[in-house]
Amino acid sequence: MDRPLPIKTPPSREELEGRLEKVRSFMRAKRMDCYVSFDPVNIYYLTNFANNVHERPFLLVIGVDSDPVMVSPLLETAHVKSRTRLNLSYATYYEFPAPDGGNWFDAYRKLIGPSMRVGIESALPAGIAAVTPGTHIMDDIIEEVRLIKTPYEIGRTVHACGIVSAGHARLLELCRPGVTEIAIYGDAVRTMMGRVLMDIPEANLVVSRFVAAVWPPSISHDPHLVPTPFMQMERGGPHVSIVTAQVDGYGVEVERTFFLGSVPDAARKPFGAVMEARARAYDMARPGAVLSEIDRAAREVIQAAGFGAYLLHRTGHGFGITGHEAPYLAIGDDRTLEPGMIVSIEPGVYIPGVGGFRHSDTVLITESGALRLTDAPETLEELTVPVD
Amino acid sequence: MDRPLPIKTPPSREELEGRLEKVRSFMRAKRMDCYVSFDPVNIYYLTNFANNVHERPFLLVIGVDSDPVMVSPLLETAHVKSRTRLNLSYATYYEFPAPDGGNWFDAYRKLIGPSMRVGIESALPAGIAAVTPGTHIMDDIIEEVRLIKTPYEIGRTVHACGIVSAGHARLLELCRPGVTEIAIYGDAVRTMMGRVLMDIPEANLVVSRFVAAVWPPSISHDPHLVPTPFMQMERGGPHVSIVTAQVDGYGVEVERTFFLGSVPDAARKPFGAVMEARARAYDMARPGAVLSEIDRAAREVIQAAGFGAYLLHRTGHGFGITGHEAPYLAIGDDRTLEPGMIVSIEPGVYIPGVGGFRHSDTVLITESGALRLTDAPETLEELTVPVD
Repeated sequence: MDRPLPIKTPPSREELEGRLEKVRSFMRAKRMDCYVSFDPVNIYYLTNFANNVHERPFLLVIGVDSDPVMVSPLLETAHVKSRTRLNLSYATYYEFPAPDGGNWFDAYRKLIGPSMRVGIESALPAGIAAVTPGTHIMDDIIEEVRLIKTPYEIGRTVHACGIVSAGHARLLELCRPGVTEIAIYGDAVRTMMGRVLMDIPEANLVVSRFVAAVWPPSISHDPHLVPTPFMQMERGGPHVSIVTAQVDGYGVEVERTFFLGSVPDAARKPFGAVMEARARAYDMARPGAVLSEIDRAAREVIQAAGFGAYLLHRTGHGFGITGHEAPYLAIGDDRTLEPGMIVSIEPGVYIPGVGGFRHSDTVLITESGALRLTDAPETLEELTVPVD
Repeated sequence: MDRPLPIKTPPSREELEGRLEKVRSFMRAKRMDCYVSFDPVNIYYLTNFANNVHERPFLLVIGVDSDPVMVSPLLETAHVKSRTRLNLSYATYYEFPAPDGGNWFDAYRKLIGPSMRVGIESALPAGIAAVTPGTHIMDDIIEEVRLIKTPYEIGRTVHACGIVSAGHARLLELCRPGVTEIAIYGDAVRTMMGRVLMDIPEANLVVSRFVAAVWPPSISHDPHLVPTPFMQMERGGPHVSIVTAQVDGYGVEVERTFFLGSVPDAARKPFGAVMEARARAYDMARPGAVLSEIDRAAREVIQAAGFGAYLLHRTGHGFGITGHEAPYLAIGDDRTLEPGMIVSIEPGVYIPGVGGFRHSDTVLITESGALRLTDAPETLEELTVPVD
């Protein structure tokens, strides 16, 4: 399958109504009278309106038949209307806190009858659950719907992948011994932001973020130490790059292991083992494959090469409107891959004294297999950057 | 009182132990055997370690006597240790998801006995509350402790205010008719980031963010419409600026209403009314003042001037390690101001066809009154920028 064409336009009403109808199918199957969404990610998915969580809550109350109701603070209502593409009703409250009877929970509780069966997210804060009437059924049905991407979402993801691929190319151009983290970050992020603003002048900045960073050899053995701004690139390696973005609402990433000038002998074998594990995961990634089995197989390649003690994480995770979501290529997730899922494939090892090794790409599951949507060099030769 | 000196260094162990001890005092008074914190803001406040919420949870389980236990994923444990300044124990889990028996909830549940009285945050996700043993007592005691700032926190906030004041000065230099939002944002944010990196080379980027934006007259009547990147500054006004930052963990803001070249006649009266309401709030802001009464008094000034229909929000909110937190200068918050609180004072009106009017500053409550920590021009004359 060829790579689908990029899409840069906002979702149509039909696109959002299609998503809502899938949620309602789950609601009907589970005999829910309404479903309450608080998670800004889910609200964005259904409405195209994005909020940051703060003390003034936004709550979307979805009935089985009528327009969803957005509970939102007065000073945000125009903002909601400016972005949403779905027909909504509004239950506006004044402020947090507000005079008696005018608080968010007053507006909210009126929408839900005491005998209703109410679906709630596992992310719903306990304080909001405590004032939610009815019988609660905790079930993340919107996450279920989000698992399989529509053609529109795939097109948006293809566009976002073009942005991070450009950012990663810029990052590799800049990486030379002595160059600081902040110089790389600043320039590569500007490259990505500039392209996004040219492509999507009305991009929603609430759901746009860009990261470009390198873990130099001194810390690449630890994928979650955060580099500090004046950390410098070094001769040799492994350096591990992370270029990740949420591009007007769509999260993607591309990551590589690379070397400046030369490859230390101790790095060759783990590099090869990770590449082999990665190839194994790509081979297995097709509709019907069990996620945990892909993780297990990739791990086995790494264990057979003698690096099992240096595994720190699963083989991959899903993408969508976030950069980390279900499904997971992990022992413990026994679901199967299906066409329209988008996942990372990124087995890695992290060896103290040697460094970290990981390639990650954003990958679409098609009818026949795995289609990489990000572009970056692949081989040890390509990833050994000549210096001076 | 003179403005306290800025502080740029990480918290000492004594500082964090002092905060923890205050939390434990509340726990003892409420007969809690342990307290569970999930909110990254509260975890950061107590430990100096900052995380972003994703599918791998971090949970801090605080006993009354022993070291707090951090439940964290394997690949983050070194990251936690690199930042925390508090003695912690660790309960590490492998991944999300994980093989049976190795999930986060397995590690977590072992820490809490079934007969314990367990304090929980109102922000605790329902899905985590559901697997938390014991009798739950929902009570935001860490937020209670955070209300009153220590001298260290005040020093950090003074430093952060210097950063946003510099960003705001740069913003005003750049604002001329035709200049785009993105040009102002980019330059003013770079100004702030550059200063922070010079001051704090090891700044924690997870809790550092910078925003500099202007609502030009076409949208300034709506404070929560988000400007788009190529929106242009216009002749006249009112333009409303927002410069807000979280500087290595401390949130502050400064905002002004300004004009380019000339002041439309229709803008003079609302500008004056808002300035009068603001002066009234400053006069009242001292220890012992009831928060709701300050809001009511500021609103009365605006209503008396004939603009009551154009109020959209409360008079102010607290700052600390976030840019929006308790206490609230709002009808509905009947607590009193106390020395060591830090709040915004920002009455505003928003008149369709005319525009928005709001000044905001970050203000420390001292023993004797209100001390402004941000600097920006004040008067209509100063805020009318000459053009060409």
